[in-house]
Amino acid sequence: MTRQHRIPVTVVGLGSMGSALAAAFLTAGHRTTVWNRTASKAAPLVAQGAVHAPTAEEAVGASPLTVACLTTYEDTLAALAPAAAALRGRALVTLNSGAPSGARAMTAWAREHGVRHLDGAVKNVPSAVGAEDTLLYYGGDRAVFDEFAPVLRVLGGDTVHLGDDPDLAALYEMAVGGTLLPALVGFFQGAAAVQARGLTAESLVRYSEKWFEMIISLLPVFAREIDRGEYGDPASSVNLFLAGAAHDAELGEEAGLDIAWHRPLHELLERAVAAGYGEHSVSALTEVLKKPSPAA
Amino acid sequence: MTRQHRIPVTVVGLGSMGSALAAAFLTAGHRTTVWNRTASKAAPLVAQGAVHAPTAEEAVGASPLTVACLTTYEDTLAALAPAAAALRGRALVTLNSGAPSGARAMTAWAREHGVRHLDGAVKNVPSAVGAEDTLLYYGGDRAVFDEFAPVLRVLGGDTVHLGDDPDLAALYEMAVGGTLLPALVGFFQGAAAVQARGLTAESLVRYSEKWFEMIISLLPVFAREIDRGEYGDPASSVNLFLAGAAHDAELGEEAGLDIAWHRPLHELLERAVAAGYGEHSVSALTEVLKKPSPAA
Repeated sequence: MTRQHRIPVTVVGLGSMGSALAAAFLTAGHRTTVWNRTASKAAPLVAQGAVHAPTAEEAVGASPLTVACLTTYEDTLAALAPAAAALRGRALVTLNSGAPSGARAMTAWAREHGVRHLDGAVKNVPSAVGAEDTLLYYGGDRAVFDEFAPVLRVLGGDTVHLGDDPDLAALYEMAVGGTLLPALVGFFQGAAAVQARGLTAESLVRYSEKWFEMIISLLPVFAREIDRGEYGDPASSVNLFLAGAAHDAELGEEAGLDIAWHRPLHELLERAVAAGYGEHSVSALTEVLKKPSPAA
Repeated sequence: MTRQHRIPVTVVGLGSMGSALAAAFLTAGHRTTVWNRTASKAAPLVAQGAVHAPTAEEAVGASPLTVACLTTYEDTLAALAPAAAALRGRALVTLNSGAPSGARAMTAWAREHGVRHLDGAVKNVPSAVGAEDTLLYYGGDRAVFDEFAPVLRVLGGDTVHLGDDPDLAALYEMAVGGTLLPALVGFFQGAAAVQARGLTAESLVRYSEKWFEMIISLLPVFAREIDRGEYGDPASSVNLFLAGAAHDAELGEEAGLDIAWHRPLHELLERAVAAGYGEHSVSALTEVLKKPSPAA
């Protein structure tokens, strides 16, 4: 552990998340080497004690572990390609976003160059990096995870190995992350609706927080229904949601909002009813999503 | 307070929520009269000590306060119309779902019949009724709220008067509730995606919970941006979300899922970019939602 805590670490990619990762390593006392295509981004970290390497090759050569935090797998490959030889035999953790196929391609590249690869995701915002309950999960080479877990925990106390498949973090990233944009658009629509009445978006926050907490409390129930494929004992039925759907149009009219984005959600409900799920749990929409869209 | 805690209460409408409300009043020691169109629903409450009135008129006549919990405002009006004379001078709290226009119509009806009306919403599931942190909010006659607040707190410790407009609870109900279906469909899609890999929906729950907690932590930031109309210092830009949108199609293909419901969300992002918000906060979508849909 003690030696682990002291191993040198390299961080490639110094956007807001990469910079937060590097800062966490510095705070934990690691010799931290950083590299970024735009070198000026390294300055605040150098002020905190980081070593700024002039090239990606020199950066990855400085540490047994490199953490790459760029935007996409393509960006990561482009940044690391010139450093492939220097990475041989070392460990590489990638923390960009992307689809499972990108993670598999990344691991294939790493194998080809003798690089030990682990792909992961930070499930939080940069300001949460380093906190005890911040979640990061990883998929891929278990030996790499076991060897570097104490170092990786510097980035967030809730550090998990999902399994040996190299694309599991990307898979869960998308599976989990798919709620973000729709949930936010729902909140923005609510904000626009209260603003149309001269009220503030801020007045909505406390109630939306409680509402999301209620949604959180429902997830284990829905997951059980979905895993069993048994939707017959609903807390909230498809028909109940379909009845509520009618109100969306009315809200749109009252507040002068564009609520067209609800239409395909309503269509999913209608297809669930057509499939005989009307009086079943709304989680039966999972089965509808597994079928190709009639419009496609 | 002591007298308040002992006033008789009537509950009209004994679905799962109405029954939970009546049970909470009984537990708190109120003489509770109940009525439901299908009388058999009253049996479990009668076993707990409730008085079952044979008609809605007799039910509302038994108490100074009636809480009506039916599905829609139309249902509520239909149930209470024969009891209008008996309600005169008494207080009526409606807790159904519906649009602000329905709440206004309900208050107009109440005024016409000399009924003191408060419209509210239970922001949680029936099993949460009576808990200290369960939220119920109300809009309308402040005097009714002040007089009966100690009784209403029996239903949930977090009891709030939003303001004197009778449709405020319905407005907030829709503004807050608009996140539910989209957030759930996002979770169901994630469940289907991990199931396509032979993994369980249950394996997703712990990560989705943390993800929603992260979303909760962002709401005050977004609300501030929206209230100021200043989107220029983004934590997450429209362009960043648009880059992520490309992955949705890939996930759909990999897992064989219908992801057509994302399309209008992506179109909102594209319209935001076209309006010059690409490098602005994703909360600028609020401004896009305020404009009529080009497709409409």
